[in-house]
Amino acid sequence: MDQDKTNQPTNDAILAALGAILEARKQQDPQDSYVASLYTNGLDKILEKVGEEATEVILASKNLHANNSHAEHAAHLVAEVADLWFHSLVMLHYQNLDASAVLAELASRFGISGHDEKASRGKS
Amino acid sequence: MDQDKTNQPTNDAILAALGAILEARKQQDPQDSYVASLYTNGLDKILEKVGEEATEVILASKNLHANNSHAEHAAHLVAEVADLWFHSLVMLHYQNLDASAVLAELASRFGISGHDEKASRGKS
Amino acid sequence: MDQDKTNQPTNDAILAALGAILEARKQQDPQDSYVASLYTNGLDKILEKVGEEATEVILASKNLHANNSHAEHAAHLVAEVADLWFHSLVMLHYQNLDASAVLAELASRFGISGHDEKASRGKS
Amino acid sequence: MDQDKTNQPTNDAILAALGAILEARKQQDPQDSYVASLYTNGLDKILEKVGEEATEVILASKNLHANNSHAEHAAHLVAEVADLWFHSLVMLHYQNLDASAVLAELASRFGISGHDEKASRGKS
Repeated sequence: MDQDKTNQPTNDAILAALGAILEARKQQDPQDSYVASLYTNGLDKILEKVGEEATEVILASKNLHANNSHAEHAAHLVAEVADLWFHSLVMLHYQNLDASAVLAELASRFGISGHDEKASRGKS
Repeated sequence: MDQDKTNQPTNDAILAALGAILEARKQQDPQDSYVASLYTNGLDKILEKVGEEATEVILASKNLHANNSHAEHAAHLVAEVADLWFHSLVMLHYQNLDASAVLAELASRFGISGHDEKASRGKS
Repeated sequence: MDQDKTNQPTNDAILAALGAILEARKQQDPQDSYVASLYTNGLDKILEKVGEEATEVILASKNLHANNSHAEHAAHLVAEVADLWFHSLVMLHYQNLDASAVLAELASRFGISGHDEKASRGKS
Repeated sequence: MDQDKTNQPTNDAILAALGAILEARKQQDPQDSYVASLYTNGLDKILEKVGEEATEVILASKNLHANNSHAEHAAHLVAEVADLWFHSLVMLHYQNLDASAVLAELASRFGISGHDEKASRGKS
């Protein structure tokens, strides 16, 4: 697919933009921004959201499976995983970490390198 | 940073390689591969792992916070988030979905486009 | 302790009264009762609450431990476990089950009988 | 039902016996007892179990609902709730608390007293 024509950002672009948003929200008024209000309310409130969204992912995944992969249920599951990952990212940024550390950890586990992006043949 | 010299893969490369691994595991013997054994054991076992890893993220995040962002605790938290995202990905692939759908959803919510990657000015 | 004087109900009395409340709420208007509104909203909403309360128990337990068993944190943990058990009970009644089935299961596992209430010597 | 004949313990008897078991396990060798090994491994391991069992309750509850309240699924759900409550109790005893505190909290919320065990007419 031609990204210039479709205007689809790359995953790198999306993660970089999300990271920039999550850092910028640290300076914002909690009344103007949901993320800023999460930071202000503190770690426990952010972790409650991580727990809530994990439960919602589980329920959405069961419902998709029970409904024969119906498209509406698939979209709902994707939205719930987006919520889970997003609140994980808020928590990482609250702790001065980011998505790149997580992806580097996964790359390391699976032997994914910049020169040779083929998956390791290891047991995974 | 010069990726050729550092051999650091991009996030796109990592996510593409992980996606390829998770698809390839669908054809493998469950005795040879942890992911293949998860697929064979079925959705509930995969979702149990998602729930377990969410709990471990919460505990690791509390422990990092209680230990003044000590590096060892930070590495542990990153590893737990990697586990959570990884098992989310296993679940998505089990349901014939993938990471790109989730990142596209996040891009859409935050107004992140390929031409203009600045964050939306919307309330987030 | 003399229960007549202190007016402390027994655990049997509490569980029986809770069970009666949860059954009675099935006939009530969701606008008049939180439990009736949970029943009306359906199983997923009840299970979201179970997941939320489990996360809150975990956080409250970590906070109590980090604060040297301070009484205020202990009271908060007890309140969160009460929330978790209560929403478990709502879920059981929604499915036409109740607390007695759960306690009978625990009695059976630990060899607790009506004649001889000493704990089994088994490995537990 | 005549408890003398059926040998069914009361809920008070079950909770008292469980409490006694959980206290006694504090003195036991972790190699001889699952509960003693949980105490030795510490709070995080106990809380991981609470999180795991909450997820298993959610899955078992969805499966019972999807299978029209089939008896085998009902027994499985009851066993999972027993696991969740049991590990909650292990956690409470680890923190020098017990089931009675939780039930007293629930009694207080619902206006359940020793003299008048009828449910409060309040909004619940």
